[in-house]
Amino acid sequence: MWKSVGNGVLEGASKVGDIDPSKLTITTSETLKPIPAPETLTFGATKTDHMLVIAFDPENGWNAPEIKPYGPFSLDPCSSVFHYATSLFEGMKAYLGPDGEPLLFRPEMNMSRMEKSAERVALPPFNSQALLTLIKKLVVLEKRWIPKEPGYSLYLRPTMIGTRPSLGVTASDYALLYVICTPAGPFFKGPSTDLSLSAVNETVRAWPGGHGGHKLAVNYGPGFGPLREANSQGYNQVLWLLGDKITEAGAMNFFAVVKRDDGDLDLITPPLDGTILPGVTRQSILDLANAHTEGKSHLPNVPSSQKLYTHEQDLTMTYLRLWHDEGKLLETFCVGTAVIVGSVTRIGQDGKDLIIDSSKAGISWTDAFRKRLTDIQLGKFKYEGWAVPCAEA
Amino acid sequence: MWKSVGNGVLEGASKVGDIDPSKLTITTSETLKPIPAPETLTFGATKTDHMLVIAFDPENGWNAPEIKPYGPFSLDPCSSVFHYATSLFEGMKAYLGPDGEPLLFRPEMNMSRMEKSAERVALPPFNSQALLTLIKKLVVLEKRWIPKEPGYSLYLRPTMIGTRPSLGVTASDYALLYVICTPAGPFFKGPSTDLSLSAVNETVRAWPGGHGGHKLAVNYGPGFGPLREANSQGYNQVLWLLGDKITEAGAMNFFAVVKRDDGDLDLITPPLDGTILPGVTRQSILDLANAHTEGKSHLPNVPSSQKLYTHEQDLTMTYLRLWHDEGKLLETFCVGTAVIVGSVTRIGQDGKDLIIDSSKAGISWTDAFRKRLTDIQLGKFKYEGWAVPCAEA
Repeated sequence: MWKSVGNGVLEGASKVGDIDPSKLTITTSETLKPIPAPETLTFGATKTDHMLVIAFDPENGWNAPEIKPYGPFSLDPCSSVFHYATSLFEGMKAYLGPDGEPLLFRPEMNMSRMEKSAERVALPPFNSQALLTLIKKLVVLEKRWIPKEPGYSLYLRPTMIGTRPSLGVTASDYALLYVICTPAGPFFKGPSTDLSLSAVNETVRAWPGGHGGHKLAVNYGPGFGPLREANSQGYNQVLWLLGDKITEAGAMNFFAVVKRDDGDLDLITPPLDGTILPGVTRQSILDLANAHTEGKSHLPNVPSSQKLYTHEQDLTMTYLRLWHDEGKLLETFCVGTAVIVGSVTRIGQDGKDLIIDSSKAGISWTDAFRKRLTDIQLGKFKYEGWAVPCAEA
Repeated sequence: MWKSVGNGVLEGASKVGDIDPSKLTITTSETLKPIPAPETLTFGATKTDHMLVIAFDPENGWNAPEIKPYGPFSLDPCSSVFHYATSLFEGMKAYLGPDGEPLLFRPEMNMSRMEKSAERVALPPFNSQALLTLIKKLVVLEKRWIPKEPGYSLYLRPTMIGTRPSLGVTASDYALLYVICTPAGPFFKGPSTDLSLSAVNETVRAWPGGHGGHKLAVNYGPGFGPLREANSQGYNQVLWLLGDKITEAGAMNFFAVVKRDDGDLDLITPPLDGTILPGVTRQSILDLANAHTEGKSHLPNVPSSQKLYTHEQDLTMTYLRLWHDEGKLLETFCVGTAVIVGSVTRIGQDGKDLIIDSSKAGISWTDAFRKRLTDIQLGKFKYEGWAVPCAEA
């Protein structure tokens, strides 16, 4: 009998099963769905033919994985996830490479974050390498769903929910780990990639000692009211503040490009202090900026001699306004799996808008990062093994 | 077509239906379950024969309510609740009164809190008086499940989950509101009603601007890891701190009885600053203490002349220790629907235990409040209409 003893450790773990890809059973759908025209896609609404499901129970641990036709779950009304939000997820994208084979972008970073999320919300630990093997098999099976059009991809949503069928206020010792796929269009529908943000600090997304640094379901629902309010005021997203400090923008990480007195540039993003999601795109932007500045790999369409020093440090609205007034705030942008990189051109607070006009600078770091990342994701620019093939998993 | 526009307001609400008890359909179970022996009950594990279910969709608003056999829900893997924790609940108890008819305890307080929870997590608004009418009908139908033994009751769990079947990171415009019932035994299995708490501030349950003041699923899951850790160290529950400030104990409100220099007593509980759940039992304790001190209704087994002044004010561990060392800290206790009132006799922090020995005082306010509340809940002591009959709903 398995027992969780905290810190990701399973007491009796040797006796219960971890995820075993060799036990995978695949049941394919008898009739495959028609693929909708790309321009008709709404994010997250179209589901592919199949899903990966792995159940956990305290007697057997992780059961044999199943790939089977996409369909509803049958769950007891007492299930832990309904009452206590024992739930986590990941967002990943699959692309078709130049050889027509599916690629994932730095998937091991999602897997490692997902392990940490499970520990934070006291769901059972799992072998994330085994899960990645299974995700690759699912992507290969769903290959016909990966759109070929630029800006499109197959969005993957690995999810784990607590399914303990009892109301006791305690950790869930039953779980369902599943992966679903949905074809996704570009985040921005038109030619503009500009975002407007409404800065909010009356409602607080995350707090030191809280859970904003983990990809848990609990970080999203309580933000939907403020998002609706921001939308009604004409802003795309909320810029979540902690007092004066900038944390995240919607569910994206935030960056500012600031001109230094010596002519070089600073690239600043808030530090991973527990209130900030350790985004895969966030880390990739930092890595690419460092590689550019160190001369290891220059970003496209920006001067190769222009140095851009990365800083993970506190960013406040006060400083943003000061740099803006001094003409030092060159660009602000948001990054994430869905948006990839989006310019922030307007930030509203207390009825006033801060307008960030990045066109004045002549060069666009936002565009440079977006182009480089997209090229890496599509396998057009090979870099550090970030694009990982799914075939032969 | 219904549209939510925030602040609990439905745009086009006149066109979509609110909860309508006159549309209730009742489908009773063909075979009723055997009622387990009371001493075998585990909290939340035994479900009664029926449940109340009301679905919301954006076209029709609240659908016709159904009471039907208890059974699983069929839900799309994309359902909002799985990914974004759009979920809330209430805890209520039904008792059998002296005439053998079911009673609820101050249910309108749960209903009003549930409305506020829905607004906080951007789920659809609803007529909570209509819901209460339906809950009473469910309780009357499930009357045979209400245990007659002292300390037992039928626990009710009104729940609302977001069921929007799409991954878009936005408010759920589909929902399921349901009420399930589970017979519950006494919180304390033995004769002792003592609780030990482990004070924790590395992990934070709730923060200003967050959601700790609403009964949302998101407030529970992230606490299960620290709870497991506290249990493994021999404590019953976590005492959640914000820095040095005491907020809640597990999912209970916290009270301290402190001796004043003039011989009167102070009853102190943290204020409803947004980090504290506005507990029905918490408010009832404050009301009963005020009634006692004002001479309106004396508490049992305590001197009627002993005044107990209520204060909703910050409580810190530093003050608790100071009062303890000065011999002024007479009692600490936790209150909630499940526990009713439980003495706190030990609080651990940084490897040291603060022992609160309430027996020295000779009288027990904890016992006085528990007895009075229990008598009101069972209809033995009539007070301010707090015990509400379910019959003829």
